Amino acid sequence: MKRVVIIGSGNLAEALARAVAKSDLELVQIFARNAERARIVAELTATDWATHPEMLARDADIYLIAVSDRAVEHVAATLPIPQGAAVAHTAGSVPLAAIPAKFARRAVFYPMQTFTKGREVDFPVIPIFLETPSAELRPELEAFARKLSGAVIWATSEQRAKVHLAAVFACNFANHMYAVGERIVHDAGLDFDVLKPLIAETAAKACDARSPLDVQTGPAVRNDFATKARHSDLLSFDLRLKNIYSTISQSIWETSKKI
Amino acid sequence: MKRVVIIGSGNLAEALARAVAKSDLELVQIFARNAERARIVAELTATDWATHPEMLARDADIYLIAVSDRAVEHVAATLPIPQGAAVAHTAGSVPLAAIPAKFARRAVFYPMQTFTKGREVDFPVIPIFLETPSAELRPELEAFARKLSGAVIWATSEQRAKVHLAAVFACNFANHMYAVGERIVHDAGLDFDVLKPLIAETAAKACDARSPLDVQTGPAVRNDFATKARHSDLLSFDLRLKNIYSTISQSIWETSKKI
Repeated sequence: MKRVVIIGSGNLAEALARAVAKSDLELVQIFARNAERARIVAELTATDWATHPEMLARDADIYLIAVSDRAVEHVAATLPIPQGAAVAHTAGSVPLAAIPAKFARRAVFYPMQTFTKGREVDFPVIPIFLETPSAELRPELEAFARKLSGAVIWATSEQRAKVHLAAVFACNFANHMYAVGERIVHDAGLDFDVLKPLIAETAAKACDARSPLDVQTGPAVRNDFATKARHSDLLSFDLRLKNIYSTISQSIWETSKKI
Repeated sequence: MKRVVIIGSGNLAEALARAVAKSDLELVQIFARNAERARIVAELTATDWATHPEMLARDADIYLIAVSDRAVEHVAATLPIPQGAAVAHTAGSVPLAAIPAKFARRAVFYPMQTFTKGREVDFPVIPIFLETPSAELRPELEAFARKLSGAVIWATSEQRAKVHLAAVFACNFANHMYAVGERIVHDAGLDFDVLKPLIAETAAKACDARSPLDVQTGPAVRNDFATKARHSDLLSFDLRLKNIYSTISQSIWETSKKI
């Protein structure tokens, strides 16, 4: 499998297009509803783009569907993708079954990372979770994925749903903790910048550790009542934050008791 | 101020000792209750150590108290620190007043970072929050801090308490989100390693952003009910995690509406 069409033009589609363009695979076309974005991504990756179904390239080996979770099923069912091609969606929390069974070579190709338009990521280190019911496609899909990343993992839809949920905690929720931190330093008349060395070191330390449990610090894991009480008082201006503080502190303490 | 005694031998004391030893300041002594740790830190930094109050070096210019929050007040009040010396504690959430007023040159020197024994940090980028009631000490303390870090910030005890609280969210709570992620990938039969590229990129992206609010991704900020409902189902095995999921998702959505 060499010739690739990417369907979609969002954050993930752009990152995928950049990765395919850098590899020795051939990026045939960016196909997307949003013509402006399709053009931008195609220009970034020196390929063609199209927005009308009748213009979809018919001669690719694999179609990567990188659209919103909700749209995967509709796009796979209605676009004139050749029936003999490999068709893979790229969504963490969408089951394989969202791709119609008429495609014998259907699959999932889920790169677990947080993608932002205009931001290049180190694609070759991103874990890619693969799934296919086709024994014939299996080795081809693995070889294809290995051209884009060194971390290729076979996973069922059920496993992938859990991995996606884990990613929500480790990425989306961690980022919200940064946002709450920002709000509190603003309240102290300081800038978000003061938190950046701490954020960088916290992530680096967890990544160097066997487990984040081994590097947990702070008043919650020490069960330091006096500090927790002072913090709770400081959060009296926002009951939602006060509730988050006590809920997570309790969870840290409960978790630490188990190890 | 050139001659430094560090009181304490924990994570922060070790990091401070390494930073002082690397600077053109003079590390005179590590003084700590725990003789074994005092010896280890002193050997790391090629200085002397002591564990009995009568052996405390009397000829230093500044005594940095890096002991547990609870112990700051007792240590400052009972050790035979010369009354003319500068005496600074290093705790984020402890007020300046924990140092007895008999020390005219009393201060706070709070380096905001997460420290772990045996792990070297990039000290010169760490924000150091300073406070002193002494107009005379002020310029000396600032010059002293600038020998250790390029990020020196004057802050009141009240501001510092907020900064410390913000650090609990951005560091301790973010790390717990990694730990919950680990638990869920383990449940899927996978290793914590699969989350590491995501954790690293999430932190890097926030640090490159104007605000973490600008780079928030995931089902909560999209208010994607279907995905949130699937995730909630997956967490049925642990009501505490289910509660954390809904509390933080709600907070992400409420926060995003304000911007």
